[in-house]
Amino acid sequence: MLTFYFAPGSCALASLIALEESGLAYEPRRLNLANGDQRQPDYLAVNPKGRVPALVTDKGVITENVAILAYVAQIVPAAKLAPLDDPFEFAQMQAFNSYLSSTVHINHSHKGRGYRWTDDAAAIETMKAKVPQTMTESFALIEDKMLKGPWVMGDQYTVADGYLFTMAKWLPGDNVDRDQFAKVSAHYARMLERPAVKKALAVEEG
Amino acid sequence: MLTFYFAPGSCALASLIALEESGLAYEPRRLNLANGDQRQPDYLAVNPKGRVPALVTDKGVITENVAILAYVAQIVPAAKLAPLDDPFEFAQMQAFNSYLSSTVHINHSHKGRGYRWTDDAAAIETMKAKVPQTMTESFALIEDKMLKGPWVMGDQYTVADGYLFTMAKWLPGDNVDRDQFAKVSAHYARMLERPAVKKALAVEEG
Repeated sequence: MLTFYFAPGSCALASLIALEESGLAYEPRRLNLANGDQRQPDYLAVNPKGRVPALVTDKGVITENVAILAYVAQIVPAAKLAPLDDPFEFAQMQAFNSYLSSTVHINHSHKGRGYRWTDDAAAIETMKAKVPQTMTESFALIEDKMLKGPWVMGDQYTVADGYLFTMAKWLPGDNVDRDQFAKVSAHYARMLERPAVKKALAVEEG
Repeated sequence: MLTFYFAPGSCALASLIALEESGLAYEPRRLNLANGDQRQPDYLAVNPKGRVPALVTDKGVITENVAILAYVAQIVPAAKLAPLDDPFEFAQMQAFNSYLSSTVHINHSHKGRGYRWTDDAAAIETMKAKVPQTMTESFALIEDKMLKGPWVMGDQYTVADGYLFTMAKWLPGDNVDRDQFAKVSAHYARMLERPAVKKALAVEEG
């Protein structure tokens, strides 16, 4: 049995969607980040980083979306959630996910988590002000160079799609008009039609 | 034939070490980031993100260390550079690499790349000031909770080791005393003894 720790509105939605797509049984555990659940000793024993997502398996805990997404795809090959038999295509998917994790999510984090990188209140405000620009630049790159369509990797739906959906969901809150990116917007609408995405959003809402 | 784009002093060293460990033939191509080589049209045609590393294969280009490292390990299984046959262990390695990419490297980047997230000169100075703290916190976590020893994953050397070495190499420049982390320091010294690491450092120096 798997246990999945997440928080509403967080990047953990990507792994939540992958779990729903895989058909794996899992127990969802919701953290309230505003309440500081992620810094409580019981959760730090699960994930010393104090972040979500975390997937507890029989063998141990897996953190980081990039790792959880590939893991879910690998342990349920029948669900065809990644190009598992082609190292080049698998690398393309991992590169996409890694870009979301280390560039897009980081851009977004400068809106609400600027305190991670500065102790200065005025500096944090200047970081917030630049988020619409950096998110727009990242999504322009995704739109023009990365999203093959109809899915991220082309014809095959993969775990990268739920991750892109999660980041695209943040755009309005980051004051970025998602409609300016035609392919991203069409992808977003397509994702909303998937039963697994509907289920994941329902689990997230609780 | 593989072509590998890197820049001295950058995170691309991690993939350079993996290539050397793998025994794969590759042509190294050095970019001078200070000269803006990464923003020239010929390089943007290779990697529209304008970043290193980039690995050009017969099938196309792979970017992002997290993806390149797993790719090199997968296409040369005989080199045993990753736990390829165990999805849980592979996920642990990917989680480690993803943490380096999306947390440790980002902390470091606030020293010299703060302009990515703010346009304010004073804010950039406050970001620089916090880098020793954030890098210390990240390496304390690596030391206490993540680095199994003697290698990142325990007894098996993997591509994660070259990535950790690359981040640990930055510590003195970030005004963090590497010696305070006994396991990280021993790992660093152990890495310096590996022929592939010596070769990668020589390639980087040119």
